[in-house]
Amino acid sequence: MSVCVCREEGGGGITRVLQDGGVWEKAGVNVSVVYGTMPPEAYRAAKGTNVEIPEGAPRVPFFACGISSVMHPKNPHCPTMHFNYRYFETDEWCGIPGQSWFGGGTDITPMYVDKEDLMHFHGTYKDICDKYDESWHPRFKKWADDYFMIPHRGETRGLGGIFYDDLQEKDHDTLINFAADNLQGVIDSYVPIVKKHKDDAFTQQEKDWQQIRRGRYVEFNLVYDRGTIFGLKTGGRIESILMSMPLSSRWEYDVKVKPGSPEHEVTECFKKNPDWANMRSGPGPLLR
Amino acid sequence: MSVCVCREEGGGGITRVLQDGGVWEKAGVNVSVVYGTMPPEAYRAAKGTNVEIPEGAPRVPFFACGISSVMHPKNPHCPTMHFNYRYFETDEWCGIPGQSWFGGGTDITPMYVDKEDLMHFHGTYKDICDKYDESWHPRFKKWADDYFMIPHRGETRGLGGIFYDDLQEKDHDTLINFAADNLQGVIDSYVPIVKKHKDDAFTQQEKDWQQIRRGRYVEFNLVYDRGTIFGLKTGGRIESILMSMPLSSRWEYDVKVKPGSPEHEVTECFKKNPDWANMRSGPGPLLR
Repeated sequence: MSVCVCREEGGGGITRVLQDGGVWEKAGVNVSVVYGTMPPEAYRAAKGTNVEIPEGAPRVPFFACGISSVMHPKNPHCPTMHFNYRYFETDEWCGIPGQSWFGGGTDITPMYVDKEDLMHFHGTYKDICDKYDESWHPRFKKWADDYFMIPHRGETRGLGGIFYDDLQEKDHDTLINFAADNLQGVIDSYVPIVKKHKDDAFTQQEKDWQQIRRGRYVEFNLVYDRGTIFGLKTGGRIESILMSMPLSSRWEYDVKVKPGSPEHEVTECFKKNPDWANMRSGPGPLLR
Repeated sequence: MSVCVCREEGGGGITRVLQDGGVWEKAGVNVSVVYGTMPPEAYRAAKGTNVEIPEGAPRVPFFACGISSVMHPKNPHCPTMHFNYRYFETDEWCGIPGQSWFGGGTDITPMYVDKEDLMHFHGTYKDICDKYDESWHPRFKKWADDYFMIPHRGETRGLGGIFYDDLQEKDHDTLINFAADNLQGVIDSYVPIVKKHKDDAFTQQEKDWQQIRRGRYVEFNLVYDRGTIFGLKTGGRIESILMSMPLSSRWEYDVKVKPGSPEHEVTECFKKNPDWANMRSGPGPLLR
C-alpha cells in the first residue's frame, strides 16, 4: 500500500507499508520533504534541545527532509529494526541566525539474544562512526540506550544501535556522507540477520514472547517517542505516524521470565545493554 | 491471578486478573485504600481541575479509596466495559481547607452497534442519575463523551456512559449512595448484554475488527487517560495500572470501513455518540 500526501504549505511525503507478508508482519517506510513555517514549539521539538521561545514569537521558516522505517518480522528469532535519518534548515528567527543540522539513528529490537548478530549489528555501526570520529560511536550508542528507555518498565525498548540529534559539529558534506553511510549500514547490518533467522523454527511460547515485546514497543512509541507524540498532538497524518505500530501485540498480566531462560537473558540486556561492538575480536562485519 | 501490595506510607491495594478464560479475553479489577501525603502535582491530577500550586508548597495530606475494572470479552459482539469509582479526602493545605469529593464513571466500548443494548446500558445510568438530579445524566454523559475522545483519530474510544469528577455538590451520604447505585448499575447494565452476546457466531473479519478497536483502546489509554499517564510517570505499580490493556490488539495500516457496513455504522457513532437513553419509549431497563 502506498500513500502520497502533499502539504498545502510546501512539499509532501510518501508512506509505503508491506503488511502480513512472507517474512514481514509489517514493514513501512516514510519519506518526506517539507518546507514553510512551523510553530516555535515544533522548532524546539525538532532541535531536541531547549530553545528559549520569546513571548509572541513568529513561526519559524524551515526546510526539512527525512526517511524513516520500521520493520517487524514474523519470526520471533528475527529482530525488529527501526531507522530514521533527517536534515533540517531554519532561516534567521528572533535574532537566531539560520542553522542546519542532521539527526538520525538505527536501532534493533531482538526478542532473543544472538551474540553474533548483536556484535555484527553494533560492530557495523561502530565501523561507520569510527571512519568519521572515534568519539562518535560510544556517544551515539549511549544516546540510543538513553533515548529508547521505557522508564516505567526500567528497561529499554530493544538493544539499541546509534542515535544522534542536532548534529552540526562537522561540515555539511561530511554529515551528509555520514547519514548516507548509516543508511547503507541498515542493509549491511540488518539484512544478514534477517536472512539467518527468517526460517528458524519457533514455538507458540516464543511467538507469545514476541507479541509481549511488541506490546512494550507500543508502550515506548505512544508514551515516550518524541516524534510520535509530536505528530499525534500536532495533527500530522496519523496513519503515517503510526506506521511504526506492530500488526499485533499482547499484554499478559504480570509476565515473569524464568531465571536462566532465553527470555530472562534478553530481559537482563534490556536493563543494561552490553557494549556488543567491542566484544568482537577486531573490526569488520561478522555476518555476510 | 491476584496481587496485594502494601504501601510504605499507608494502605495498599489488590489487583485480580482473569486472563484467556471462556468468556473473557482479559478482565481485571483494582481495589485500593491509601493515605499519607502526596506531591502537589498529584493533588492537581486527583482533582482533575486547575489547582494553583504555590512555590515550595509542601506535600498534601490525603486519604483515597477506589475500585476500578476493565473487562474485555472474547466475542467481538460483546462490548468491553470499564468502570472506576473513587473517593478523596484532603486535610487543610496551603490555606485551602480540607475537602472531600467523589469521582467515577462507567463506560462501554462495543465493536458493533446493537441499539437495544445501547438504550439499555445508557438508560440504566440515566435512571440512576435521575433519582438524584435530572441535570446529572445529560452532564455526565457529555463528560464521558468528551473525556474518552481520541483527538488524533477524531473519534471516541467507545460509546460512552457516564463520567464525573470533583463531585461535592450534594452531601456525603447522597454521593456515596450515588456511587453505590452506579456500581450496582454495572451489573444491571452490562451483565445482560454479555449474556446476550457471549456465544454469538462471528467471522474472522469481525474478530480482526475487534482487535483493531482494541488498538484504539490502547492508544487512548497510553496517550490520553489521565489515570494511566499519571500512574506511569509517578512510579505506580505498572502491572496494576496496565491491567486495563487488552490481551491482544492490532494495528493494520490505513483501515477503511466500507460505507454501509456494520463497521461503518459504529464508526459514525464514535464520531458523534447518539443520545441512546432518550431513544427508549420510557424509563426502565430493556434487557433482563
